[in-house]
Amino acid sequence: MSLDLTATSIDLTRQLVDIPSVSGDEGPIADLVEAALAGATHLEVIRDGDAIVARTDLGRARRVVIAGHLDTVPINGNVPSHVETDEAGETVLWGRGTTDMKAGVAVQLKLAVELAEPAVDLTWIWYDHEEVAASLNGLGRIARNRPDLLAGDFAILGEPSNGRIEGGCNGTVRVRVTARGVRSHSARAWMGVNAVHGLAPALAKLAAYEPAIVPVDGLDYRESLNAVEIGGGVATNVIPDKAWMLVNYRFAPDKSAAEAIAFLEEFFAGYEVVVDDAADGARPGLDAPLAQEFVRAVGVEAGPKYGWTDVARFAALGVPAVNYGPGDPSLAHKDDERVPVAQITDCEEALRAWLTGAITA
Amino acid sequence: MSLDLTATSIDLTRQLVDIPSVSGDEGPIADLVEAALAGATHLEVIRDGDAIVARTDLGRARRVVIAGHLDTVPINGNVPSHVETDEAGETVLWGRGTTDMKAGVAVQLKLAVELAEPAVDLTWIWYDHEEVAASLNGLGRIARNRPDLLAGDFAILGEPSNGRIEGGCNGTVRVRVTARGVRSHSARAWMGVNAVHGLAPALAKLAAYEPAIVPVDGLDYRESLNAVEIGGGVATNVIPDKAWMLVNYRFAPDKSAAEAIAFLEEFFAGYEVVVDDAADGARPGLDAPLAQEFVRAVGVEAGPKYGWTDVARFAALGVPAVNYGPGDPSLAHKDDERVPVAQITDCEEALRAWLTGAITA
Repeated sequence: MSLDLTATSIDLTRQLVDIPSVSGDEGPIADLVEAALAGATHLEVIRDGDAIVARTDLGRARRVVIAGHLDTVPINGNVPSHVETDEAGETVLWGRGTTDMKAGVAVQLKLAVELAEPAVDLTWIWYDHEEVAASLNGLGRIARNRPDLLAGDFAILGEPSNGRIEGGCNGTVRVRVTARGVRSHSARAWMGVNAVHGLAPALAKLAAYEPAIVPVDGLDYRESLNAVEIGGGVATNVIPDKAWMLVNYRFAPDKSAAEAIAFLEEFFAGYEVVVDDAADGARPGLDAPLAQEFVRAVGVEAGPKYGWTDVARFAALGVPAVNYGPGDPSLAHKDDERVPVAQITDCEEALRAWLTGAITA
Repeated sequence: MSLDLTATSIDLTRQLVDIPSVSGDEGPIADLVEAALAGATHLEVIRDGDAIVARTDLGRARRVVIAGHLDTVPINGNVPSHVETDEAGETVLWGRGTTDMKAGVAVQLKLAVELAEPAVDLTWIWYDHEEVAASLNGLGRIARNRPDLLAGDFAILGEPSNGRIEGGCNGTVRVRVTARGVRSHSARAWMGVNAVHGLAPALAKLAAYEPAIVPVDGLDYRESLNAVEIGGGVATNVIPDKAWMLVNYRFAPDKSAAEAIAFLEEFFAGYEVVVDDAADGARPGLDAPLAQEFVRAVGVEAGPKYGWTDVARFAALGVPAVNYGPGDPSLAHKDDERVPVAQITDCEEALRAWLTGAITA
């Protein structure tokens, strides 16, 4: 079995979707990608675990990094792929990973071998473990092991964005808010202190809160503040002595994760607040000259990205980065994940035109 | 192995505690009780599953039913029993079932064989499955199969009451209160409806509620209304579409379980309210002449019982019933369950004096 990188980007998406690559099992697909690149003499290919990096070294004035992840969330009866017509009459490719994000990877792989003489030097990165714990993330591993491989003047992450350009991303913090009480039998509740009832003021404040919309570098970042889990209880006849909420704050990239945590600690003053997860966002970086040229070339309006993505890893290294790829992000991880084939072709053409055209920035 | 019913009630408590009889495993202890009663010719002994009923038939004007359960909650390193001196300097018998309620059963067994000529006819009942689902309860099974065996003018249930007389019991209803929402990614929360936030008004109302104290037949029943469990959440990055509370209402016996459920349905109007469990309480029945005489004979003030007990099964059959037994009810089910030996002897003496004295009621 091998990958045919000269196929259309639609066919290539199908080839990729039909190779299962759930996080932790990216070995076979990484092997095939590495083998398929072997004949492209304009590329230096470097393997790091199950991530593949392919670089031109043409001495261009600027370097653009273009990255995508090879893994998917678990398959649930949605592999192999098939082509169908959706309710809107559009031809779509259906299956796990079509949207998130093998269509984006297919476009990248096709252009990587095709573009032997791009207008900028290119670093292509296809990596593992994006859909699982941040500590396993392949791009994060490369950033730690070989930060030089991520260096560039601009980065494009192929996460699904419906073919729009989505700049930066909100940050995310998750905290556990805990109320304490004293157990007693529920028939003599006055001998105890009900911790679930103790959560009431915090939950009421949270439910009443209206999240802000924060303009950053010309884009409006809409925040979210939500309980994503709540729990408490010992037994059905016991007054609970502990109750908690997991609260997720998606905050605009005008503030750091540390500032977001400080906000939550004040918001939930009087409760135990323990940080469960925290990641800085990324400013959109659309003031970078290469970014502005890219937006002009693609010819669509840029918007903000709400979900946290690996663009933040580039931002942390000082590389302006945007999300740009085929597929509806709201279908990511859904069992009926699918991508309009026209978006795959549109992305391929826009990227090719920009990378082979006159880049003056 | 056999039980020696001529031992002191303290020794007999130890014998019973050292025979494991966790709910569902009452066969061996029921066999020993049945065998030990064989020589008591003044008793007719009837077995129903692992429950033993022993009756006198002396043609007395009144019949008193005295009952206790043979089972315990699971053992947790607290069998066999031992004698120790507690912090207050009292001699206590320590171990699973000492309080709930083998000390009470020991007093009953001892008096059952000893009192061949009581002042009233007696029906003694030792039964199984009290500590588990109500549908398995041995006393409930007898009430269905042989309600004639529960007939009497007055009933005494040997549940721990610290040697006080506790009349009737609160009822209990448990409902599941559910809020619904719409899932979305927590980075785009405005596309969903957060069901945990939807619980906020219900939880706030519950936390602010001040339960009533309701006088019934001269005793003050203190009610409780509490969330005993709360839950909700799909994943840490998903707006939850469902959240729920289990709410336990311990209500005074002036109202039925159906009335308590109606109260909760109105209290939580706008939410899904599903009944999880419901049991009527029991009015104290202390206006019954035999009950009044018993209270005078024991010489302690009667108080209300807050926890639901099987006295409600007698009340449902029209038999006034009280709780009266050695042991602190707040130690029931605790791993350091223990009973002051003096309370065992006091109960034995008070019951003997009343059952052999002049009962005129």
